[in-house]
Amino acid sequence: MSEKLNQLKELLGEVSDLGKAASVLSWDQQVNMPPMGGEARGQQLATLSKIAQEKFTSDEVGRLLEDLKAEFASADPASDEAAMIRVAARNYDKSKRVPPEFVAEQAIVSTKAFEAWVEAKAKSNFSIFQPHLERVVELVKKYISFFPPADHPYDTLLDDYEPGMKTEEVKAIFNALRPKQVELIKAITSSRQVRDDFLFKKYNEAKLLAFGEGIISKFGYDWKRGRQDKAPHPFETAFSVNDVRITTRFEKDNPMAVLFSTMHESGHAMYEQGINPAYERTPLGGGTSLAVHESQSRMWENLVGRSLPFWEHFFPALKKTFPSQLDGVSLKTFYKAINKVEPSLIRVNADEATYNLHIMLRLELEIAMVEGRVAIKDLPELWNAKMQEYLGITPPNDAKGVLQDIHWSGGAIGYFSTYALGNLVSVQLWEKLKKDIRDLDDQLRKGKFDALLGWLREKVHVHGHKYDPQDLVQKVTGSKITPEPYIHYLTKKYGEIYGL
Amino acid sequence: MSEKLNQLKELLGEVSDLGKAASVLSWDQQVNMPPMGGEARGQQLATLSKIAQEKFTSDEVGRLLEDLKAEFASADPASDEAAMIRVAARNYDKSKRVPPEFVAEQAIVSTKAFEAWVEAKAKSNFSIFQPHLERVVELVKKYISFFPPADHPYDTLLDDYEPGMKTEEVKAIFNALRPKQVELIKAITSSRQVRDDFLFKKYNEAKLLAFGEGIISKFGYDWKRGRQDKAPHPFETAFSVNDVRITTRFEKDNPMAVLFSTMHESGHAMYEQGINPAYERTPLGGGTSLAVHESQSRMWENLVGRSLPFWEHFFPALKKTFPSQLDGVSLKTFYKAINKVEPSLIRVNADEATYNLHIMLRLELEIAMVEGRVAIKDLPELWNAKMQEYLGITPPNDAKGVLQDIHWSGGAIGYFSTYALGNLVSVQLWEKLKKDIRDLDDQLRKGKFDALLGWLREKVHVHGHKYDPQDLVQKVTGSKITPEPYIHYLTKKYGEIYGL
Repeated sequence: MSEKLNQLKELLGEVSDLGKAASVLSWDQQVNMPPMGGEARGQQLATLSKIAQEKFTSDEVGRLLEDLKAEFASADPASDEAAMIRVAARNYDKSKRVPPEFVAEQAIVSTKAFEAWVEAKAKSNFSIFQPHLERVVELVKKYISFFPPADHPYDTLLDDYEPGMKTEEVKAIFNALRPKQVELIKAITSSRQVRDDFLFKKYNEAKLLAFGEGIISKFGYDWKRGRQDKAPHPFETAFSVNDVRITTRFEKDNPMAVLFSTMHESGHAMYEQGINPAYERTPLGGGTSLAVHESQSRMWENLVGRSLPFWEHFFPALKKTFPSQLDGVSLKTFYKAINKVEPSLIRVNADEATYNLHIMLRLELEIAMVEGRVAIKDLPELWNAKMQEYLGITPPNDAKGVLQDIHWSGGAIGYFSTYALGNLVSVQLWEKLKKDIRDLDDQLRKGKFDALLGWLREKVHVHGHKYDPQDLVQKVTGSKITPEPYIHYLTKKYGEIYGL
Repeated sequence: MSEKLNQLKELLGEVSDLGKAASVLSWDQQVNMPPMGGEARGQQLATLSKIAQEKFTSDEVGRLLEDLKAEFASADPASDEAAMIRVAARNYDKSKRVPPEFVAEQAIVSTKAFEAWVEAKAKSNFSIFQPHLERVVELVKKYISFFPPADHPYDTLLDDYEPGMKTEEVKAIFNALRPKQVELIKAITSSRQVRDDFLFKKYNEAKLLAFGEGIISKFGYDWKRGRQDKAPHPFETAFSVNDVRITTRFEKDNPMAVLFSTMHESGHAMYEQGINPAYERTPLGGGTSLAVHESQSRMWENLVGRSLPFWEHFFPALKKTFPSQLDGVSLKTFYKAINKVEPSLIRVNADEATYNLHIMLRLELEIAMVEGRVAIKDLPELWNAKMQEYLGITPPNDAKGVLQDIHWSGGAIGYFSTYALGNLVSVQLWEKLKKDIRDLDDQLRKGKFDALLGWLREKVHVHGHKYDPQDLVQKVTGSKITPEPYIHYLTKKYGEIYGL
């Protein structure tokens, strides 16, 4: 192998190690850290991030990348080496464009904005957050200015989460999807609602947690290379291909949520556990984009975990574990209950049929902010109007409206659409899966997931960051991200459940 | 404050952050890490250590230290600034003397030696470990050669664990102690043995753990700045003054050990929790030496936790928690049982009266190795002969003899004596404590520990690394480390228990 490539890999390996070390510290912060440990931990994380950034943007890395681009100019672009140089060079270019002083300023602004957001949300008072969000948006615009002009300024933001994806593409997808989802929800809300009272009885936490862990063990989540802990928010984090952890939480008001959260995070985790070990410590390690990551979590949570065949297998065991709570509840009734559609205010609690509309609303507001077409002070009103238009409900206050999500306080503008794209990709992959594994439903009915996981490993997971998301989806399904499979899926599934 | 001092503190702060990050990763490795996570974790730790070392030994740090030594030449040597520069300069000098290639070589040799030791111990076959230990000792000698000649070559090793301590001092202390301890043990073993069968009944693990946590809560271990987890080996680790964690383990064969292990580790932890917060991220943060650290753990474990007044307070609660196990057991019987003296083969299980002899044996062998007076292949025989001489017993095999400790496999030669010195310092401090807090025993009887902890905080903890161990002990007790208080303590305590 090229001597220079080895040198680059050694340097990038150290950058990766620093990032993984920071991930361990963050995981610990959320899972274990005693109450007063936060200040020092913040300092330690800042140091790790600073050193990683210095190492990555060093002139040495720049020179090696230039030399390697020349050396590998005629190499097969589909080779691991060419892909690694391409991804590293792109990340390097992005990092070099953003001055360290700007990164430091953004960190300070975000910290204050986060604190203001916490207070504003607690008091349900947008005006507390408003000046901070104005500052955040200013900095986002400044960030965009460091990059060459794109077709749309929002492209620059989107590219950080979905490399290669364009604002116009997302808009086109959402424009096709929106009227269909709005229509579907109208039809559902005028139908007879399904019964789900039994989901909200008292369930034993430990038993539900164990049931969830039993499910993901069958999925193929590898406990020798992972673990599950409790944390205030469920998440997945990878310290290496051989140490991919998930967290969950138990909500007394909504006990069953723990099952779906565990399945969801296991989907993220199995993606990370399935990446080619040769990509460890290189820029090709890790999932390729947030949308593709979300396609994996959503697939296991929804396409598997909220499907009828899946519960044909697991419902008897669940009933045996909770005989009194599920007394007299049939499989069909249970299946309908866990798929109940009801327009609601909070994105993270939204069901499959309404979720994407929450996202579209956010995307529209974000684009308007970046284009400067909306004054920040008008956001709450706009938010509420769109909620009424898409979901037929209006938030009673800002805490349940424009203030509900943490993302903007941290400057994460450009992030939200990946959630909806992930839903789309999950179904697009599923359509292909069903062609390749003809008896997929039968396998779910038997609680067998090895063919499914094997397919995902081979087609998606193993590639890590090698292909950009649109290229990967094209490669696997024959087309770029497209809304039709998802529309078809929603219409069919909920048509049956609600007898439309 | 001096601009250059600020620059140095910023650089050393980053070095400290990297070290603390590594501590989090190590803690996680021992407490949480899934079985297959080890390889990547080793790589991450190696990177953190390499970068910290590079940062610390940079020319910039060297220049700043030179300038600051001049700038502060006439400053009060007892000022924090002067102490910080002194300690940083000493550490810098040590780090610069040892070439990075040597550190790398030592890491490789240690890794292999550790693996060989694990196998050798499992098979109780010293010859598997012998060539590796030979290599380890060669490297230790090479390490010594990087330093200016000392009074004794072993001084260089000792200084890494007990800054400023001399081999001759340790030998003199041990020479005074040894005959007294040997004599005491002979007297005890020819006396009537105490009864302790009830300690080895079946105890509920969760209840014992909770009891131990209740004790250290009363001691003053601050749970807002710490936590306890289970791990294969008990240890204490500090990620900052506000996050100091301990681990423990439950041994079915010896359930009560968990109480004493928890008290022991809490002693280490309260030391770290008590260090001046102004020393955070500087070389003055952390305890000053292993012996002083051990004096704190041993004080809470033995001088408090195995004392009669302490159990006057806690025994009724223990009896209430374990009524059947302790049925008919009186306080005195219990007290004698937890202080039973019995010469035994394994250091970590040794009682107070025999423990130091295990250490002296190791120190003698280490000095002989460093002086080249002993062939490595002859160690097992020498070990067994000394065990017979000091404790009157002979190991039946190498696993229970020369192979029992991990230390040598990692090149940690010079470490052991700090355990015994810690015992001595604990009693030396205790004598002073009893003069300053006249009703100390009464306070223990009432389960009150605030005056005790307050005294330790003020006299020992707050100073962190500011004073070298001998200076600190001198400052607090009026003399350097001396064996007399310990001899007096042992003779009195065990004279009473065994009626000598």
